This record gives sequence, structure tokens and C-alpha cells, in this order.
Amino acid sequence: MSDGIVRSICGIDGVQCNGIKEGKYGLALIQAEGNAAAVFTKNVAQAAPIILMKERMERGFLEATIINSGCANALTGKRGERDAGIMGEIAAEHLSCNPDAIGVASTGVIGRYIDLSIIQRQCSDIAPYMDSSQKTEDATAAAIMTTDTFQKHALVTREDFSIGGICKGSGMIAPNMGTMLGFLYTDADIPAHDIKSSLKNAVSKSFNRVVVDGDTSTNDVTFLTATGSAGKVDGNDFSQALLECCTILAKQIAQDGEGASRMIEVTVKNAKTESDAEIIAKTIIGSPLVKTAIYGQDPNWGRIIAAAGRAGVSFDPDTISCWMGSGSLKAPVCLEGEMTGDLSSAKRAMGEKIVVIELDLHEGSREATAWGCDLTEGYVIINGRYTT
Amino acid sequence: MSDGIVRSICGIDGVQCNGIKEGKYGLALIQAEGNAAAVFTKNVAQAAPIILMKERMERGFLEATIINSGCANALTGKRGERDAGIMGEIAAEHLSCNPDAIGVASTGVIGRYIDLSIIQRQCSDIAPYMDSSQKTEDATAAAIMTTDTFQKHALVTREDFSIGGICKGSGMIAPNMGTMLGFLYTDADIPAHDIKSSLKNAVSKSFNRVVVDGDTSTNDVTFLTATGSAGKVDGNDFSQALLECCTILAKQIAQDGEGASRMIEVTVKNAKTESDAEIIAKTIIGSPLVKTAIYGQDPNWGRIIAAAGRAGVSFDPDTISCWMGSGSLKAPVCLEGEMTGDLSSAKRAMGEKIVVIELDLHEGSREATAWGCDLTEGYVIINGRYTT
Repeated sequence: MSDGIVRSICGIDGVQCNGIKEGKYGLALIQAEGNAAAVFTKNVAQAAPIILMKERMERGFLEATIINSGCANALTGKRGERDAGIMGEIAAEHLSCNPDAIGVASTGVIGRYIDLSIIQRQCSDIAPYMDSSQKTEDATAAAIMTTDTFQKHALVTREDFSIGGICKGSGMIAPNMGTMLGFLYTDADIPAHDIKSSLKNAVSKSFNRVVVDGDTSTNDVTFLTATGSAGKVDGNDFSQALLECCTILAKQIAQDGEGASRMIEVTVKNAKTESDAEIIAKTIIGSPLVKTAIYGQDPNWGRIIAAAGRAGVSFDPDTISCWMGSGSLKAPVCLEGEMTGDLSSAKRAMGEKIVVIELDLHEGSREATAWGCDLTEGYVIINGRYTT
Repeated sequence: MSDGIVRSICGIDGVQCNGIKEGKYGLALIQAEGNAAAVFTKNVAQAAPIILMKERMERGFLEATIINSGCANALTGKRGERDAGIMGEIAAEHLSCNPDAIGVASTGVIGRYIDLSIIQRQCSDIAPYMDSSQKTEDATAAAIMTTDTFQKHALVTREDFSIGGICKGSGMIAPNMGTMLGFLYTDADIPAHDIKSSLKNAVSKSFNRVVVDGDTSTNDVTFLTATGSAGKVDGNDFSQALLECCTILAKQIAQDGEGASRMIEVTVKNAKTESDAEIIAKTIIGSPLVKTAIYGQDPNWGRIIAAAGRAGVSFDPDTISCWMGSGSLKAPVCLEGEMTGDLSSAKRAMGEKIVVIELDLHEGSREATAWGCDLTEGYVIINGRYTT
């Protein structure tokens, strides 16, 4: 837990859940009926549950979701697709739902068939005890973790509605949603079509701006279900609250990148377009040389500009300015193309848990922020021994 | 040294050189007169010597080259450009050349001014002892190294001409020539324009297919000078020999990636276009998840397909085949979209120094090969402590 919230999705009227984690195999059930939408991975190699859900979500309605961790059910062909369907049926049976209104998501090792007997048994263990308590929310968020080191929850409340979410992240987090599963719920009454557009917008500016290692998973998906009990709300208010909720979760994912010792936040200002700013911010965040420098508390700002320079966006390096800092400290390391020469403040900032990098391109008026983490020996150790 | 060649550029008639390395500061001089061309980094943040040489190489002629290691002279503004010019003048004076026919290259830390007094003094130390001996070639190849762990030489001989080269690589090696300096010489008599087109072609299929960490340097450049004493040669023969020479060097760079314990060679076959094959091969080679899996001798082929799937090239994952091996061993891990289930041979192959991955897309008839290395704790340690 990063900020003390342990009741987020269960803070939403109409949501019940439960979860179990046994060694590397976890199972979670979340029940909540309403209009729903999902955003999926852009990887052309898509896991079986993704293939299943892309079609099913056309209906724009969910009654419940089943999620397993430990096996991704990816690159498993027709058998995998059948297994994903059966997973949904198992959940439907235990929760007395329509099987066509069950969300299915998986995370874990790719290229292995899922063991349905484990799913069946774990489902039987937890389904009778679905609740909206702190305890069941906690079990649910824990069940979907893989190499995550802490649970990820967010709750955003407005006068007339709330949005709560849990997610898992950690490795394979990348420009277009790495192995990231997100489950968002709101009591606002939102038409299915508006849910989809709000979710796409929020994901593009939050989860899609987190880069842990540049890898993009076969399994990523974020669901949003609107139970509707709070009634109609203002569309803009809702979109803003949703982005806020997703951003809180996105930062938790960045903070918990595999092996990370520090979170990195990069803001690129005064770009010609928001897309230019985003691409540069994500290229900096994704640079192994920048990531290792920050791990080593080395204010090697030249690597930041070098990463920006290879992002495929044209700008004039002779007018660029760059600051490094943390909290209220913001130390200039390069002003209008000239190094400032004093790196002592920047070096001090890099000892903090959150390192902030700001770049001013002097090319226009648009900006974007991306989040990531440093690259440590821990990442190598975690990922060199994952299958076994 | 990877393969016992220690006389490569000095195997070319008309080439003399010398070098010195004192702690992190190295200097090399290579004298060879003839038509010449260069290929430069595509990073928009370009080091001072790159800016200088892009203009100077328009003449298509070099008499000598000066290279320093320890300071990249990058992001150093107008002062850096002046310093790069002075570096060339220092070399010209010591070697009695035309200052406008001096190649200048730098590698090392970005964002620091170059100490010209060191350049001047080292130049005075080595210029009187220029030679085409094994000893001076050795000193030259050693002088340009940064985090390289061995010197990189290649010599390709044909009946009527030869091509020799040295290079440095190691970190920041990426899709478009990372911090990679290459110095190639031939005794063939080639017109300046043909040198340029042959060099561009060879670099695009060799150095540009090496990925160590996805970072692309501000300083990359490869020079080719033709001394001409062997007379006219067949253009196709020459282009083939040049590609061969560059490929030998490219593989040495991959093998010596920062912290690498294994070289990885990825071949993508039966793609629609060579460019599709290249993009997928480089995305696989650049994936931290693939690199760490290979370091851990973990035949996690799912990560290979997942990396291919996010390369931005469309293909059908249900018809893809994948092999992992080494030397004469080539073990299928996935055939036409179905996992083979037996990973024991693949796992054994991953214990070797060179790990080969082959992917068959079943989409067309084009192929490409890319080279890289695994990702180890060593990379993190090297790059977390570089500036200090």
C-alpha cells in the first residue's frame, strides 16, 4: 500500500469482491453490475482472455469479473481461448450471473496452458464469501499481484459520485499498457458509449504514460463498470475524476516497477504538440542509461538530452533547458543549451524517492508528463529467474 | 580481442597510427590519405565533432583522423564546436596535414567541455611514433575504448584489395548507431561518391542492427577512407567485402555490450519486407525482458513473441514459429502458433556464449538479422556509476 487507502472499489455502492493467493497462483472475483467498457493492449500477440473480451465487451455491460495471476493464458491458441471462456463460465456459475456478462483477465507466465482445476477450486473457496469489506478488497488486490511489491488502490470522491480502482503492474509496463490490469468502478450512471470514450482518454494520459521497461504485454486490459446508483453526473466532471483516479494508480505502478528504488517523473514543456512532448517524455523515462544514472544518483543530464534527441521529434538542442529535482527543489542543469556547471543540488535531489526531470523545448506551448522508475540489479534478478 | 586479429587497419597500405590511454583519457591518431566518407548519428542532439564533420566531409577527402575518449564534447554549444576545430588543428600541425582534411571524433561523458591541454600533450607524445606496426595498431584500438572490455578489429582480404577496420562500442548502442565509433580503411581506389553509398549500405545492415540498450548516442560516426594504392576494383565485390568487415565488427560490439555475459543473434525469416524483419529482430534484441531471460538461461519464448508483437508490424501470431539454439543446435519452442512443450534443448543452448533466436513469420520471403546481448547486473553497475 502506497498511501493508506485500503477500501477503494469497495467504496463504490454495488461492488463486492474476494480473492485468494496461494504461492504464485491467485484468483479474484469482483461483482458489480452495470454499463462497462474496456481498453486493451495494442500488442498484436494477444492473450486468450483479451481475444475473448474484445468481442464480449461490444455489449457494453458486465455483471462480474474473474482474474487469475500466475498464468497469462497467452500464446495458447484455440485451447487457450476455450479455457478463457470456461474461466468465465466458472465465475458465472459461482456468482449466478450470465456467462456472457463476465469479464476475464489473466496475468503471469506466457506460453503455458492454464490449470482450470486450480481456477475451479479457488473460485469455490472464495465465491461464498464475497463482501464489500476492507478484508475482501485487500484479498482481491493481493490476488492479482505478480511481482508487485504492494497493492494498488485509488478512490476519488466528488460531491455526487465516486470512482474507485485497483490495479497491478510491475514489469512489462510500457508505452502502450504493459502487463497492467486495471479494474475501475463508479456509482455514477454513465451511458456505455461515454464510459468507453472517458476510459480511452484517461488511460491514454495515465497508464499509457508509464514506462517501466519498454515491453508491452500480451494481456493488458483496464475495465470500467458504472453501477449507476448515484444517478446522472456531469460528463466533464466524470472524465476529470476518472483521469485523476487512473493517474494515482499509474504513479503507484511506476513507483513499484520491478526492482525500482526510485520513481521518476518527466515533464516536457513548450513542445509543438502534446504528442511530441509525450514521445520525448516516454523516451527519456524508457532510456536504460537515464534509469541507471538515476539509480546511481548520478545527475548525468547529458543522457537525458541524448535520449530526447533520439525520440524522433525535431527540436533545437541549443535552446533546450533542463531541470532535475525532487519535491520543492528544482535545480537547473542546462539553460538554453548551456550547461550550468553546478550539479550539487541535482545530485542531492537524486537521493530522494521521487526524482523529477523537467525539460523546456522552447518550441511551442504543449506539455506532457510520463512516469517510470530507475533500473537496478533487482530488475535483472527478478526477470532472469521468472519462469522457474 | 575476440578473434586474434591485431593488425587490421595497419594491414592496409598507406595507413599509419598510434594511440595512448591514460586512465579514462585516450587519444588516437590515424593517418591515411584518400577519398573518404562518413555516416553519422541520427540523434538530433549532435556532439560538436559531428557538427564539424558533417560539413567537412562534404569534400569527400581525408588525410588523417584524431579521436579522443573520456569526453564526448557533446552538448557543449559554440565553445564545443570551436574546441572540436582546434582538436583537428592540433592533429594537422603534428602530422603536417591540411587542417580541413582531418577527421575528428570524440566519445565519453556528455555535457562537459573538452580539456584541450590533455589533447595537445597526448598528441605530442604519440605523433612522433606513428607506425603501421602491430604495436601502434594495438595502442590505437585501445585508446578509443571507453567501457569496452576488448579491442575490436576486422580485416577482410580479397585477391585484389583489402578492407580493415577498428571500432569501439559497448553502451548506448542502439537502432541507429549508439556510441559507436568506426574507422575503416581500404587500399581499393573508390570514387568518393561510391564510398558513401557503399558505407551507408554496409552500416545500415551491420552497425545499425546492433542493439545493446536502445540508446543512441550524440557522437556516433563511422569513417571510411580509400587510400587507392590497389587500384580500381569491382563495385559489387567492394560493397560485399565492406558489409562483411562491418558485420564482423558489429558482432564484436554486440558481444562486448556493457555487462554482457552472452551475445544474442536474432533472425526473422519470411517477413513481408526486409524492414519488417529488421524492426521485429531489433525489438526482440532490445527487449529487457528477453535480455534478462537469456541472462537467466530461461527459455521464456513467450517474451520473444510478446516483443515481436509490439514491434508495430502486423503478423498472425497463430502461424508463427520460433526456434532457440546455439551453434548447430536449433530447438523448436513454438511451431505454427503451437508451443512444442519441450524446452530442455532450448535451455541447454542458452548456457552457450552465443544464443541464436529464429522466428518464421510465414508472411512473405524477406529476412533480417540483428545482434545484441543479455542484460545483467553488470550493465546496471557500469551505468549507475559512469560520471563519477
